Amino acid sequence: MPASPVTYTFLGPEGTFTEAALMQVPGAAEATRVPASNVNAALDKVRDGSAGAAMVPIENSVEGGVTATLDAIASGQELRIIREVLVPISFVLVARPGVAISDIRRISTHGHAWAQCRLWVENNIPSAEYVPGSSTAAAAVGLLEQDAHYDAAICAPIVAQEQPGLSVLAENIGDNPGAVTRFVLVGRPGVLPERTGADKTTVVVPLPEDRPGALMEILDQFATRGVNLSRIESRPTGQYLGHYFFSIDADGHVGDARVADALAGLHRISPATRFLGSYGRADAQSAYIAPHTSDEAFRAAHEWVGAILQGEPIPSESVSGASPTA
Amino acid sequence: MPASPVTYTFLGPEGTFTEAALMQVPGAAEATRVPASNVNAALDKVRDGSAGAAMVPIENSVEGGVTATLDAIASGQELRIIREVLVPISFVLVARPGVAISDIRRISTHGHAWAQCRLWVENNIPSAEYVPGSSTAAAAVGLLEQDAHYDAAICAPIVAQEQPGLSVLAENIGDNPGAVTRFVLVGRPGVLPERTGADKTTVVVPLPEDRPGALMEILDQFATRGVNLSRIESRPTGQYLGHYFFSIDADGHVGDARVADALAGLHRISPATRFLGSYGRADAQSAYIAPHTSDEAFRAAHEWVGAILQGEPIPSESVSGASPTA
Amino acid sequence: MPASPVTYTFLGPEGTFTEAALMQVPGAAEATRVPASNVNAALDKVRDGSAGAAMVPIENSVEGGVTATLDAIASGQELRIIREVLVPISFVLVARPGVAISDIRRISTHGHAWAQCRLWVENNIPSAEYVPGSSTAAAAVGLLEQDAHYDAAICAPIVAQEQPGLSVLAENIGDNPGAVTRFVLVGRPGVLPERTGADKTTVVVPLPEDRPGALMEILDQFATRGVNLSRIESRPTGQYLGHYFFSIDADGHVGDARVADALAGLHRISPATRFLGSYGRADAQSAYIAPHTSDEAFRAAHEWVGAILQGEPIPSESVSGASPTA
Amino acid sequence: MPASPVTYTFLGPEGTFTEAALMQVPGAAEATRVPASNVNAALDKVRDGSAGAAMVPIENSVEGGVTATLDAIASGQELRIIREVLVPISFVLVARPGVAISDIRRISTHGHAWAQCRLWVENNIPSAEYVPGSSTAAAAVGLLEQDAHYDAAICAPIVAQEQPGLSVLAENIGDNPGAVTRFVLVGRPGVLPERTGADKTTVVVPLPEDRPGALMEILDQFATRGVNLSRIESRPTGQYLGHYFFSIDADGHVGDARVADALAGLHRISPATRFLGSYGRADAQSAYIAPHTSDEAFRAAHEWVGAILQGEPIPSESVSGASPTA
Repeated sequence: MPASPVTYTFLGPEGTFTEAALMQVPGAAEATRVPASNVNAALDKVRDGSAGAAMVPIENSVEGGVTATLDAIASGQELRIIREVLVPISFVLVARPGVAISDIRRISTHGHAWAQCRLWVENNIPSAEYVPGSSTAAAAVGLLEQDAHYDAAICAPIVAQEQPGLSVLAENIGDNPGAVTRFVLVGRPGVLPERTGADKTTVVVPLPEDRPGALMEILDQFATRGVNLSRIESRPTGQYLGHYFFSIDADGHVGDARVADALAGLHRISPATRFLGSYGRADAQSAYIAPHTSDEAFRAAHEWVGAILQGEPIPSESVSGASPTA
Repeated sequence: MPASPVTYTFLGPEGTFTEAALMQVPGAAEATRVPASNVNAALDKVRDGSAGAAMVPIENSVEGGVTATLDAIASGQELRIIREVLVPISFVLVARPGVAISDIRRISTHGHAWAQCRLWVENNIPSAEYVPGSSTAAAAVGLLEQDAHYDAAICAPIVAQEQPGLSVLAENIGDNPGAVTRFVLVGRPGVLPERTGADKTTVVVPLPEDRPGALMEILDQFATRGVNLSRIESRPTGQYLGHYFFSIDADGHVGDARVADALAGLHRISPATRFLGSYGRADAQSAYIAPHTSDEAFRAAHEWVGAILQGEPIPSESVSGASPTA
Repeated sequence: MPASPVTYTFLGPEGTFTEAALMQVPGAAEATRVPASNVNAALDKVRDGSAGAAMVPIENSVEGGVTATLDAIASGQELRIIREVLVPISFVLVARPGVAISDIRRISTHGHAWAQCRLWVENNIPSAEYVPGSSTAAAAVGLLEQDAHYDAAICAPIVAQEQPGLSVLAENIGDNPGAVTRFVLVGRPGVLPERTGADKTTVVVPLPEDRPGALMEILDQFATRGVNLSRIESRPTGQYLGHYFFSIDADGHVGDARVADALAGLHRISPATRFLGSYGRADAQSAYIAPHTSDEAFRAAHEWVGAILQGEPIPSESVSGASPTA
Repeated sequence: MPASPVTYTFLGPEGTFTEAALMQVPGAAEATRVPASNVNAALDKVRDGSAGAAMVPIENSVEGGVTATLDAIASGQELRIIREVLVPISFVLVARPGVAISDIRRISTHGHAWAQCRLWVENNIPSAEYVPGSSTAAAAVGLLEQDAHYDAAICAPIVAQEQPGLSVLAENIGDNPGAVTRFVLVGRPGVLPERTGADKTTVVVPLPEDRPGALMEILDQFATRGVNLSRIESRPTGQYLGHYFFSIDADGHVGDARVADALAGLHRISPATRFLGSYGRADAQSAYIAPHTSDEAFRAAHEWVGAILQGEPIPSESVSGASPTA
């Protein structure tokens, strides 16, 4: 954890799920919280020191990776994920008082929210037209403006609670009741969060183009050290079709020998590999570690090779029972 | 190719890059072309028979996979990709006549287009505010409306040409001059496009959860048959975090023995694997095929195993020079 | 099983462990049994039709593969292993009546037997000199000759029992009490032994030299089909240092789809691969078969690809819950 | 190299190809050379200090691995291979003066030599009977004894030259004219031979039994570091059928980072792995090293991970061109 940041920023505006995620961080409720208009702006506040850390969404169980975050964190000055937060997602339909569902002809919300409520809308307001909004909160607040050119908005329950001028017409309208979004708190490089025994490590690995099978080589770096992957997403580098980088979450902390060894392997294969942080898992579930990938196994192997290089004799078991020397 | 579809549909409105892609299909210029309001609507027209085929975007060199298409084609009644089209992407800034760049305060366009012109906007109109639009064409046409609440739009050059009421303030404002979008023409299952010798096969493979290392197993099905992958994207199934399917483009045609064999392997590992089509590559570049993955090698191997199962003697080379029988 | 061979041959002379192995074959006790002077001679009798099948040793738990057999069966006219037999190995020390252990100065036996009793000899008759013998039985019988130039022999207990002129000075003198030798009954290609559900398949695979990593590719053919290997031995082809073939025992029968598919893969990688037979395991232990490598999984995959090639629609599960079509 | 050993031992007797191999070692011609009766005896002289190093055969291009050496070096007190020597093998047929080929009825030689001349004998003296000999030299010298019970011997040309009582009846009678045997000079652990740039490393790796696929895991340790294998041989541990260790020669020196890293991986998977030495190749051919497996790549990867663990910022390239931060 960074040394008590005075100021947090987050993907705004206020009232989004991102602010709800930030509120879960110990101390954030009492700290200064500054909304940013987009993910890049939030991360830039961290980079330039005007904020200590930024809360941004990184992955949605329905809509997938948040590409703006995946891309923004993968380039520019290095940053570190220092915490992850999971927030269950539910949506409400809001309108100005007096408006009934049957009156609604145009609905605004963020594209991701629209995608997650599409079935409900098709079944309940099939003729509704979609008006893109820059965020769920902005769409809701926009209803209060004089010249609003839509009749309803889809937003988080918290927004509706805080805006007295809005009435809730329907709750839990998301098509997937178990939807959850994963947020990450991002700071500048510094002291790593300590090992908790249930950690995650995030890296960005550009796919080397100079040889086929590079993706399997990358995955193999984890597999041969018994490091499980909980997320892998491909993203275009933007240079041309078919040029990718991979954003990967692996079980474990870089302080674990098997993870450190896997990262070294990645760096050899793809030298522009970027380390995005090791941090405690939100679900606190620890991974199974096979004996041959334990810290102890790595330490013993390191010592053994060291002794060989020093020319020292090594007391080792016989491997053949056929020809013991009397 | 489907037998001369009378009607094509495409992700509308008219004037987008998608219609430009459709116009590259032989015969499309003379055929009926019906815009659809979203990818699902376009595909549904094909599914219900009201259109013979639909042109939709699937991948952008800057913004990545078009998730609406990837998801829509992966579920519901089966469809087939029968052709791919590549369209270079360039953007223009348009406004109503008389408006100068220095007058602009709010710009509307589709989110993907905004992301691709962000640097140009930051450098040239740093104070501009973004107004989300449902498409680049809709944003441009919207400028002509009475109550337009933005001053400029970012769209394709073709839209500006066809709308006399718009003036072009800047051309080629995309941050990445080589940007290209890949579109696919989607029809109902039927006769497969013929092998051209430079083909692609697209599949959707849900990641089996019952065993670790499943992704490597999936990739290995291609690797052991010498089948190269040109695209791999992860998408959430929407059920919960960490539950993925992979959308994959592989070199070759299912009529190639090595591809058919790889697909059979995928089906065993992940029985819900979905075949989305084999079709000629837009770039017509044929892949290298190692001798041991040629159709001939598969045929010979099949015959050899068949002879063994029939109990037939097999004339084969001696593998040891040590002990030939006189 | 071959249709009731009238005549069996075996690696002689009579009284060796090989004859004991042959006696375990149903009907062999009543059949004609002809000893052969070496493995090649035994196999040639099968090849020229003068014997229906030959019993030869293939692997010893202490001394390893029997190279003469591995090489002889890997070259020349094709043969088939149709049965395996395991024989526990124990050794006795024999001499002419009246000779005591303290009298012994020179001991003869086959080289493999000598290696397996070396510790016992070092501890009990440390000054004994080794006289190579062509077989354990020949060494024992040779003691009865007038001009025998050694005092004792190491042989199978059965030889001592059948030779009234020999006395047993020590029993169970093998250094490894659990030693066992595996023998195989070899016939001409013909009807395959039926699947028992607990089978083995033996193949000989020359290592292709035209690309690195070929051994891993070979092993991968088994691994990707879930076929376990119970034996793998390298043998030089005799052409030059570093040029190998591998003799491999795999779990399962070529009539199992996963084994047939693995063999087809081997044939592609190494076209001179030789099939040496599928036969019931001596220990009758059946292997675990993962669902995705079952005959049913292969059949379903084959049908699925067939339907694709025919252009038939395929009812398959949706893999994405995100965007079902209403 | 051990510090100038005063005494060498070798697999005797004198006059074998092993002594010829020893004579190629600089200084050996002037040093004390003591023959040993078998490989274990030779290695024991090194272990107890009565010899500085032992020359023993390890691999024959026709007959394969010398199992006595492979087993003896794999168990007991640790030893180190410090040099390899290749000796072309050719055979002559010798007899006492006055004996013609047509007179020969029984031929003695070592079993390996017999196997390598079998075709010549079948074609030229088809009725000859084989009498096992403990070595090629012993068989030849034995002809001079009063009670020799065979008429001819197969041995190295050098033996015939040094024994005036023998006449050469035929030369170059080996079935494989390019036959070569590889010998190794074995010493006690100590200072490693220096890197030459064209080195070999020999290890003994017991196959772990607690998980399937262990052999592929072992091979993968080399493959993922780009370390090529020039020899791999399976040997039974002698404990029971199917329990193996592997004797492996890998390209490179343990002083090479990629080899050291591969050895550490082997030690984790199979902790009883035994290091048998790094030494210059007899053929002085250096291996190709891919950039990502160079010492420099390992060093850079190590530093990178070290900086991460220290919490230092790491200047690294952006991997995404999509969203550079201005």
